[in-house]
Amino acid sequence: MEKTNIAIVGLGTVGSGVARLLLDHGDRTARHAGRTLWLRKAVARDLAKAAARIDLPEGVLTDSIDEVVNDPEITVVAQLIGGLEPARSIMLRLLESGKDIVTANKALLAEHGPELFDRARQLGRSIAFEASVAGGIPIIANISQCLSANQLQSLEGILNGTSNFIVSQMDEFGSNYEEVVKTAQELGYAEADPTMDVDGTDAAQKLAILAHLAFGATVDWNDIPKVGIDGLDPVDLRYARELGYRIKLLAVANLTDDGLELSVSPTLLKIGTPLAEVRNAFNAIRAIGDAVGPVFFHGLGAGQMPTASAVVADLIDTAVGRTKLTFQTLEYFSSDNPPRAILRDAETLRGRFYLRLHVANHPGTLAAIANVLAKHAISIASVIQHESETARGEMELVPLVIMTHQATEGAAKLATSEIEALPAVQGVVTRFRVKE
Amino acid sequence: MEKTNIAIVGLGTVGSGVARLLLDHGDRTARHAGRTLWLRKAVARDLAKAAARIDLPEGVLTDSIDEVVNDPEITVVAQLIGGLEPARSIMLRLLESGKDIVTANKALLAEHGPELFDRARQLGRSIAFEASVAGGIPIIANISQCLSANQLQSLEGILNGTSNFIVSQMDEFGSNYEEVVKTAQELGYAEADPTMDVDGTDAAQKLAILAHLAFGATVDWNDIPKVGIDGLDPVDLRYARELGYRIKLLAVANLTDDGLELSVSPTLLKIGTPLAEVRNAFNAIRAIGDAVGPVFFHGLGAGQMPTASAVVADLIDTAVGRTKLTFQTLEYFSSDNPPRAILRDAETLRGRFYLRLHVANHPGTLAAIANVLAKHAISIASVIQHESETARGEMELVPLVIMTHQATEGAAKLATSEIEALPAVQGVVTRFRVKE
Repeated sequence: MEKTNIAIVGLGTVGSGVARLLLDHGDRTARHAGRTLWLRKAVARDLAKAAARIDLPEGVLTDSIDEVVNDPEITVVAQLIGGLEPARSIMLRLLESGKDIVTANKALLAEHGPELFDRARQLGRSIAFEASVAGGIPIIANISQCLSANQLQSLEGILNGTSNFIVSQMDEFGSNYEEVVKTAQELGYAEADPTMDVDGTDAAQKLAILAHLAFGATVDWNDIPKVGIDGLDPVDLRYARELGYRIKLLAVANLTDDGLELSVSPTLLKIGTPLAEVRNAFNAIRAIGDAVGPVFFHGLGAGQMPTASAVVADLIDTAVGRTKLTFQTLEYFSSDNPPRAILRDAETLRGRFYLRLHVANHPGTLAAIANVLAKHAISIASVIQHESETARGEMELVPLVIMTHQATEGAAKLATSEIEALPAVQGVVTRFRVKE
Repeated sequence: MEKTNIAIVGLGTVGSGVARLLLDHGDRTARHAGRTLWLRKAVARDLAKAAARIDLPEGVLTDSIDEVVNDPEITVVAQLIGGLEPARSIMLRLLESGKDIVTANKALLAEHGPELFDRARQLGRSIAFEASVAGGIPIIANISQCLSANQLQSLEGILNGTSNFIVSQMDEFGSNYEEVVKTAQELGYAEADPTMDVDGTDAAQKLAILAHLAFGATVDWNDIPKVGIDGLDPVDLRYARELGYRIKLLAVANLTDDGLELSVSPTLLKIGTPLAEVRNAFNAIRAIGDAVGPVFFHGLGAGQMPTASAVVADLIDTAVGRTKLTFQTLEYFSSDNPPRAILRDAETLRGRFYLRLHVANHPGTLAAIANVLAKHAISIASVIQHESETARGEMELVPLVIMTHQATEGAAKLATSEIEALPAVQGVVTRFRVKE
C-alpha cells in the first residue's frame, strides 16, 4: 500500500488528538484514503509537556520545525499552532518547502488568508481548513462542495461554543455571567482569557470565512458589526423566555438585493426552533440554498476529538488528492478575484427588536416611549411591565420590556437614543435583534 | 474555459430540475467546477411531455439514448430513470461507452449495486449517487468523506419523506391514514401507488446504502427487518403524545459488539428531541462517530430542486475529478471486499417497547398481563388506561397502553404473543420500539 508521510506541527489538545487518530486507527484512515497515513514527525515547543500528553513512537517527537521542512518525504502537514505569529511564518516556510497544509487556525485565515492562499497557489500547494469553523461539523466541505449547485441565500449559525455554553448555563440556572465563565473555565470550555470568544471576535472570524466560501465576499472580519455576550444580563434571558424566545450569539450572513448582511450579535430566537435549542458547547448552522432549501447542521463545535476528526478528514482528502482539485478550482481567497458580494449598509436592515429599559414608575412614561417609537414608524408587538415588588414611590425605577414589529436597524438605533434621552428613562436601553 | 459535455437521461421531475440548474445557472456551476458544464443532450421517452415540462435549446432534446452512447464528447451522464429495468441496462451501456454516471436511483443501487459498481471500476469509470438518499441532505458525502476520520457507531434517520409527511399530518390533525394519503397524493408528496414508500421498502433500500458506506456492510435490503406506517392507527399517535413521544418511521443502523443492528420501523421518539421534531417532507439523520460525537443533518428529503441540487453537486464533483478519486479509493460495493460488519440477531436487541391492546374491562385483566410481562423479565414503566366513556359492562373492551423498561426484542415478541392468547385480550397487540 502506498504511504503518505504526515507531520503534525503543534502538539496541543487538537494536535495530540490528531496523533491519536493516526496512530490508533491507521487501518481506518488507510481504508478511507486508499493509502497509509504515516505520522513521521510531530513538532512541539515543549517536549516534556508533549510527552506527558501523548506517547509517540521512537523518533517522531521533535522540537525542531527544520526536521519537517528539510524532510522531502513529508508531503502533508497538519499545522495546529494557534495565533498569528509564528503560525503565519511557519505556514509560509512549510508551503515553500513543498508541503500541503491542513490547519484549524481560523484567526490566521481571517487575518492572512489571501496572502497564504495566493502563495500556496503559486507554489502548486493546497491549504485545507475544515477544522477552522464549527469543529466537528463539516461545514466547509458542505458549503463549498456538497451544496455547490446552489446560490446560498442565507447562513445563520451558532459558531462559538464557549459563548453558547455560557448563555445556555445562564439560561438554565439563572446564574450571572461571571459565575458561569468561572465554571466554563474549570470545565475547559473557556480559556483563561476568554475575551476573543465572548466578545464575538471568534464568531466574526468564522463568519468571514463562511461568507467568503458561500458568497464570494472578501470581507475583513473587523468590518463585521459584532456584539458579544460579555454584557449579557440574566434578566434578558428571563424576559426573552417569557416572550417565547431564547437568546443566542448568532452569526448571520444574508444575501439581500442591497448586498450582503453580516453580523454577530445576541439574538432572540423562538423557543422550539432548531437554532434556539442548540445547547452548551454545540454549534449549528442553518443554510438556505435556492435549490436545496433549508439545510441544518448540528454538532460539537470544539473539543479535542471533534476538531481532530475534521483535521484527519482533511489529511485524508489531501493525501487522496481531492483537496488539490477543490483548492485549484475554487480559488479561495484569491486576491485576483473581485469580490462577488458587497456588504450592505447595516442601518437599512429590517428586523424586529427587543428593548429593555429602566423607567420611572409614574404616569406618562409608557406614552412618552410609545410616542418616540411611533415617530420612527416602529410599532409595538408586545410589552412586559410587571407590577414592581420593590418600587413603591413614583420615582422608583421599574424594568420595561418592549418587543417591536419590523423596523430598520437605523430607526431602532435612533429611537433608542431618543428614548435614552427621556427624563423618565434611566441609563442605557438594552437592544437585541429578534429572529422568527 | 474548459468544457465538460453532460447528458441527462430521463427528463422527469428531477431531470428537468437538473436541466434548469445547468441552463439557468451556468455561471455558478462553472465557478464551482472551474469549467463549463454544458448540457448537450437530454433524453426523454415522451418528447411532447418533456417539451411541456422544460424549454430546452435547439438540438438538446431527443428520444434516442444512442445519441448519448455514440457521442464521445459526452463524458458525464445524469441518469435519472427510475425502477430497475431498463435503468440497469442503460447504465451498463453508458458505462461501457465511457461515461461517468450520476444517479438518484436508490432502488437500482440497493438491488444491483455490486454489479454496477464492479463494472464501473473495471472500465475506469465512476458512479456518483448523492441524490439516492435523503434528497437535498448531502449525507453520502458526509459519511464517506467528511466524517471519514471516524468509526461511525450509529445512524438514525428519517429517510422517507412521504411516510413522514403522512405521519406528521395524522399527528397534527388527528386524521386517519387513508385521508392523509389522499391529501399527500394531491399535494404530490405521495405517488399514485405509494406502497414502496409507506411499507418501509424505500427507507430500507436507503438504509442498506448508508450501512454499506458507514459500516462496510453488504446487506440485501430485503434482509432488513421492516415495518411501515401503512398500518398506523391515529390512536397510537395520541397515546404516544400523552406519554411524551411522537411516532416516526425510523431507520436505524447501530454497531454493537454483537454485530450491526439494522431496522426500519415506526418508533416512539421523545418530544423535543431533534428527530422527533422532523416534520412533513423533511428528512433528517443523526450520526454518531467515535471522534466527532453526534452530528445531526436536516433538510428536504425529496422534491424536484433539492434532489436536483444533489445531482448537480455530483455532476460538478465528477467534472472536476473528485468523484473518481473517491470512487477508486473507497471501492463502494466491491464484490471483492469482504463485508466488515455482520447483521446481528434482532431477537437479542434491547430496547423499550410501547404496547397497545384491547382488554375486557373486568377484574384481574391487568394482573394477568402484568404476570406475562414479569415472567419474561419485562418491567412496566407506565400504563395508560382511561376510564371508558362507552364501555359499561364488564365484558366491554377498553384500550390499554403499556410502556416497558428495557427488554430484548425476543422477550417482547414472546410476551406479546402470550398476551394475545389471554382470554381477556382481544385481537392483536400493537407493538412499537421506543428511543430516548
